[in-house]
Amino acid sequence: MSEIDILTEYFKKFPGIGPRQARRFVYHILRQDNSEIEKFTGLISDLKNNIRVCKMSYVHFYSTKNEELSQIERDPSRDNKVLMIVPTDTDMENVEKQRVYNGKYFILGGVISPTDTNPENKIRSRELISSLTKRIENGLTEIIVAMPVHRDGEHTMDYLIQLLEPLSRKHNIKISTLGRGMSTGTELEYIDEHTMKSALENRK
Amino acid sequence: MSEIDILTEYFKKFPGIGPRQARRFVYHILRQDNSEIEKFTGLISDLKNNIRVCKMSYVHFYSTKNEELSQIERDPSRDNKVLMIVPTDTDMENVEKQRVYNGKYFILGGVISPTDTNPENKIRSRELISSLTKRIENGLTEIIVAMPVHRDGEHTMDYLIQLLEPLSRKHNIKISTLGRGMSTGTELEYIDEHTMKSALENRK
Amino acid sequence: MSEIDILTEYFKKFPGIGPRQARRFVYHILRQDNSEIEKFTGLISDLKNNIRVCKMSYVHFYSTKNEELSQIERDPSRDNKVLMIVPTDTDMENVEKQRVYNGKYFILGGVISPTDTNPENKIRSRELISSLTKRIENGLTEIIVAMPVHRDGEHTMDYLIQLLEPLSRKHNIKISTLGRGMSTGTELEYIDEHTMKSALENRK
Amino acid sequence: MSEIDILTEYFKKFPGIGPRQARRFVYHILRQDNSEIEKFTGLISDLKNNIRVCKMSYVHFYSTKNEELSQIERDPSRDNKVLMIVPTDTDMENVEKQRVYNGKYFILGGVISPTDTNPENKIRSRELISSLTKRIENGLTEIIVAMPVHRDGEHTMDYLIQLLEPLSRKHNIKISTLGRGMSTGTELEYIDEHTMKSALENRK
Repeated sequence: MSEIDILTEYFKKFPGIGPRQARRFVYHILRQDNSEIEKFTGLISDLKNNIRVCKMSYVHFYSTKNEELSQIERDPSRDNKVLMIVPTDTDMENVEKQRVYNGKYFILGGVISPTDTNPENKIRSRELISSLTKRIENGLTEIIVAMPVHRDGEHTMDYLIQLLEPLSRKHNIKISTLGRGMSTGTELEYIDEHTMKSALENRK
Repeated sequence: MSEIDILTEYFKKFPGIGPRQARRFVYHILRQDNSEIEKFTGLISDLKNNIRVCKMSYVHFYSTKNEELSQIERDPSRDNKVLMIVPTDTDMENVEKQRVYNGKYFILGGVISPTDTNPENKIRSRELISSLTKRIENGLTEIIVAMPVHRDGEHTMDYLIQLLEPLSRKHNIKISTLGRGMSTGTELEYIDEHTMKSALENRK
Repeated sequence: MSEIDILTEYFKKFPGIGPRQARRFVYHILRQDNSEIEKFTGLISDLKNNIRVCKMSYVHFYSTKNEELSQIERDPSRDNKVLMIVPTDTDMENVEKQRVYNGKYFILGGVISPTDTNPENKIRSRELISSLTKRIENGLTEIIVAMPVHRDGEHTMDYLIQLLEPLSRKHNIKISTLGRGMSTGTELEYIDEHTMKSALENRK
Repeated sequence: MSEIDILTEYFKKFPGIGPRQARRFVYHILRQDNSEIEKFTGLISDLKNNIRVCKMSYVHFYSTKNEELSQIERDPSRDNKVLMIVPTDTDMENVEKQRVYNGKYFILGGVISPTDTNPENKIRSRELISSLTKRIENGLTEIIVAMPVHRDGEHTMDYLIQLLEPLSRKHNIKISTLGRGMSTGTELEYIDEHTMKSALENRK
């Protein structure tokens, strides 16, 4: 196997990349200036060395100092009373971009499926529970379980609601889920029962 | 042009049908038994002769008697107090299929675009207004403007809200719109500002 | 089931049509003028009554007289020495449109798959053999087996070559297949072995 | 802009990659072990340092020695009499994979479009001409212009045929192009005139 083949194999493992596109990536890199390539590989090494996982929210963050908490976690202007549980870093990034939420986050690390036998190994359920002790001390009053609306997302939502129930009762913390209704692109011609029902209930 | 070509031309005018599929439709018909074809053309003629447009809701309905109102319109168990304005017959059919709404309907005949110069020629705004007089007599208290969530749908919604405003004020009729939020398939990674905001506001 | 539903069911059986598009077809028809609909259903009946299958080529053709042979079959300027076997009427129509072939045709009625247990019931192999007797009398010297280049097409090609072999030997008739090579849209980056090999062999 | 954003920007420049997939690439890298990342960046640097462009065929090749010619160019078992001109490295790689060609190659560096004003700046036409002098000394008798079958590919083919014409006449070198015909996936229902004509001419 040639060196070009070996690098192609690396790119084939990138999410959503097949053999042909992996090959094109190699030739794309070969066409760059040496200085560009150095910046690129340097950035990857730097990022890998200095990326951390926040001890409270489990979000990835970059820090050259010995910080243990992400920027949002440390930000005193963010609301300690509300926590939103989202599957991934990119989900959090997109919610942040909309600038409609000012609470804290917890990155679950994915969603679970009804067929998963050991869900606690697939998502950070233990880390969630232990981080909540500290959050409750800091005045937490509501946990928003924010999951995508598909089979696994809804299963994960049910799983978390059950998991958090004892804690919710003991500390009087509200467990909420995101409102359902018409989202951008929804057409009446294709609307399903649950969405239509919520759209009627939440009408203004 | 052969007879096969002429029939192909008819099928090319069907919504979403290109020349090749139109041709395949012709051969599909030629493969049917004579009795099947007679039933098919008979059904088309029968439907065309006996289809009516409801004088109140403007929905198409089939009736061999001289009825002026659709089945839903005549149904005494349907709620006269609520009216849902939808763009098309198929929108209404799908909402009905979900079995979550028990009021009446008005078929607008489509949506309008911000670039339309004479929107009143494209949708049934005059028919809407005149049908409302009768509905108000019958106890109407709320009009739900149910439009798809895209540019033209939202423009039509704004147009109708403005159109209905004087009537709403005079007769104390609530004008409402369907609730926004997470719909089936929505992922946090792709959610837009409006949907996220509503999903947070409508959280339970 | 309403009359609209029944007609929807008919359209759902059209090739490539799902329930929603079938529904849109019904409403498309309901929007037409009565005279248009009459022309449409009249044309279907007329076509169904007067379409014939050519006794020699098995192509569908329209004729109000009692003709037994299609126009191409009767055309004295067409070459009797060459016969092209194609799967369907639409294949023949498209080959004709290219105006590069002047022989006769035989419509096989489809292709067969390696998993078909009784291929002779799926395609017109018997009709092919019996029509060839007459063609050989009329001076046939070559049969072009023109099949699409995919698994079933190539299997049908092999099947026909074997079927025609005894006849070919007895009457000294050439059995040929269409040339392989670069076709419109072929890219070297995706070319397969067979196509590349033929493209090299047939290079000019 | 955070370090994650900067690396995302690099990946956005990869061929066919949008902002979301670029982001996923960053998180994909962050999930790898440090040793994997080191191998990956090390491989990129090594490749970039040791990749060369062959002085005769202009193909990229990896060599830690000071070699000036690619492996195929140096291979004494490859036929010096035939040269195939292909647009890109990946075209050559795919042709090689089919194992049906044993001559040499020239990588043109792309195709040109009828609207290009200075085609000689976009492809290696000068390098082609000068490399041919040496090849003619080594016994070259045929140049295969192997271009994809689309507008730009065919325009490039015409351009090269004209460019090579004087040289062809002077040194009695055959200029050939790949044969046209049915390629894998071609259906008679969609075949175009040129392909049908060639498929008939090249029939066997």
